Amino acid sequence: MISTPHPRTLLLTPGPLTTSEATRAALGRDWGSRDDDFIALTARLRTRLTALAGGAGTHETVLLAGSGTFAVEAALGTLVPRDGRALVLVNGAYGRRMVEMLRRMGRDHVALEWDEDRPVDPDAVERALLADPAITDVAVVQCETTSGLLNPVERIADVVRRQGRRLLVDAMSAFGALPIDASRLGLCAVMASSNKGLEGVPGISFVVAERAHLARCAGNAHSLSLDLHAQAEGFRGNGQWRFTPPVQVAAALDAALDQLEAEGGIAARGARYAALHRMLVDGMEALGFRCFLPPDLQAPIIVTFRDPGPPFDFAALYARLQAEGIVLYPGKLTREPSFRIGCIGAIDEADMRRVLDAIARAARSA
Amino acid sequence: MISTPHPRTLLLTPGPLTTSEATRAALGRDWGSRDDDFIALTARLRTRLTALAGGAGTHETVLLAGSGTFAVEAALGTLVPRDGRALVLVNGAYGRRMVEMLRRMGRDHVALEWDEDRPVDPDAVERALLADPAITDVAVVQCETTSGLLNPVERIADVVRRQGRRLLVDAMSAFGALPIDASRLGLCAVMASSNKGLEGVPGISFVVAERAHLARCAGNAHSLSLDLHAQAEGFRGNGQWRFTPPVQVAAALDAALDQLEAEGGIAARGARYAALHRMLVDGMEALGFRCFLPPDLQAPIIVTFRDPGPPFDFAALYARLQAEGIVLYPGKLTREPSFRIGCIGAIDEADMRRVLDAIARAARSA
Repeated sequence: MISTPHPRTLLLTPGPLTTSEATRAALGRDWGSRDDDFIALTARLRTRLTALAGGAGTHETVLLAGSGTFAVEAALGTLVPRDGRALVLVNGAYGRRMVEMLRRMGRDHVALEWDEDRPVDPDAVERALLADPAITDVAVVQCETTSGLLNPVERIADVVRRQGRRLLVDAMSAFGALPIDASRLGLCAVMASSNKGLEGVPGISFVVAERAHLARCAGNAHSLSLDLHAQAEGFRGNGQWRFTPPVQVAAALDAALDQLEAEGGIAARGARYAALHRMLVDGMEALGFRCFLPPDLQAPIIVTFRDPGPPFDFAALYARLQAEGIVLYPGKLTREPSFRIGCIGAIDEADMRRVLDAIARAARSA
Repeated sequence: MISTPHPRTLLLTPGPLTTSEATRAALGRDWGSRDDDFIALTARLRTRLTALAGGAGTHETVLLAGSGTFAVEAALGTLVPRDGRALVLVNGAYGRRMVEMLRRMGRDHVALEWDEDRPVDPDAVERALLADPAITDVAVVQCETTSGLLNPVERIADVVRRQGRRLLVDAMSAFGALPIDASRLGLCAVMASSNKGLEGVPGISFVVAERAHLARCAGNAHSLSLDLHAQAEGFRGNGQWRFTPPVQVAAALDAALDQLEAEGGIAARGARYAALHRMLVDGMEALGFRCFLPPDLQAPIIVTFRDPGPPFDFAALYARLQAEGIVLYPGKLTREPSFRIGCIGAIDEADMRRVLDAIARAARSA
């Protein structure tokens, strides 16, 4: 029997994602976390991530071990004053999660909610800010991974700036793939992680925070581990992480950023994802599936398809693809029956063709 | 010129540590974090870590992304009731850090302090508990990495149990190398991480928590990200991490646990570390260095040596060794001038010989 090489695993999920061989190869070394080499790597990561967020000169990056959620909680806990009030803009699970975080940490907050297939409305935000001068901070998710919807961050930022409040943006799934301009938009913070559009492996999250405001936040955090101010002081002081960092994950992120640069930066990566997204939507529509969102609201990150109901069986499709080394995202986040397929990570059009062919075969045999 | 293979990097630090090739090889794969394979890996980790803590049947392991400090904060925040009072036993930086955590989260607490070269005194703990019935929980560090001192956890546990309070043990640097028996000692929680005695890479921490008490802690945590109760419910529900886990780090930990088992478990690993520790102390004493702690207080994890002062120059020693691929721990935590050398990780006697030879050469040339 001739053994053929097994095609590599493809993850069509909202993260962890398919990574490149070069990124995974960078995991294969031990590092002393307080050694000069690793201090230099940390400094390089911070500078590059600040630049990717459009924050050079005004912002600084604070790295954290852990999931992206940790960075969102760290930003809310460190940057929203204890006597402040946050307005959370909610149109999906990640917006709701920020409300839950604020509730847990006992920070005053209000929420504005939209349906999961509706973008945040900047005019409604402006009315809310005019009506409630006690609101100090506004928090929004850039690409709400619940549905794949892109919120109008630029227009929200205009409103928030005009009303003299601060804006914190959870840019998790879009960071590295869609531009964000922290300086120009006057953002207070941009939160993201290593393993989405940056195509690193999971284990590091970070906040690109406006320097002047961060400097005013000593002692404000509800948590020692998630105190961005203290960690920023540490980085500025001796260049080290306060607590043992995931050194291999950091090295992989550094390698992934090399590759992002070599690809042509955010514009080129966004264009690759957009092409993959187009292929995915066209291919699925040709098979009879329908998108949950209208095209103008859809980010090229992850696509929610409506579950057409029997005889379609998502669990069966999942299992069929899994057997071929293609991993979809099990379970849904929208309130309506649906499933999601991601179009980000270190994949190309041949990979997406392989995915669509596998789905077509599964559909025919159902 | 003949190039000789560069000897591998040795980390003689309190972690991250030198890891084995097999552990690093396990990093080289992509995993879907909600896929069956990864759910099975997560379940395997939880079962094995609970067993290593001596908690099978009474305890359960809650895994967290992030540094060991996150697990300590998560345990204090989730398990100490909001209307409780914690007594922290302090004889080093890690004990002091627990005090700071409780202060930050606004949880009532008191501390008993000893000098950094003195172990916690169980009799003093008993007197403190008798004098203050409002104390609900006691927290202690098993091996205080500040100095390398081993606290008498068994005797402290006896006292705390007799007085009807709960005991939380930060077992970070000793877990996997020194036995701990969570069931027999009636411990409320044991906190540790992937990258010390378990010899995984850093990025995962965990709490082995007493099940019955954990079940009573819904909604108690000060933080969404660090809520052990909610994460335990998640693991019991669908077997998944609530937030994106560091999948590669988890796979490396699984591989590291295979190797721990193959080595003969905690007893065999502890014996290897004890032999390395003996070599290190004997070798350093032969070079004229003196240990900070008396032998009966010293854990075979990390050794603090007194800085003999000029002409000895730790920075020069550090640089010399670094050039040979040997990484020490820069900076000290004790209040007295000192430096530390670790004796844990995937290293053997030949490696320790290489380290001692390098130190001897550096000392001769100084």
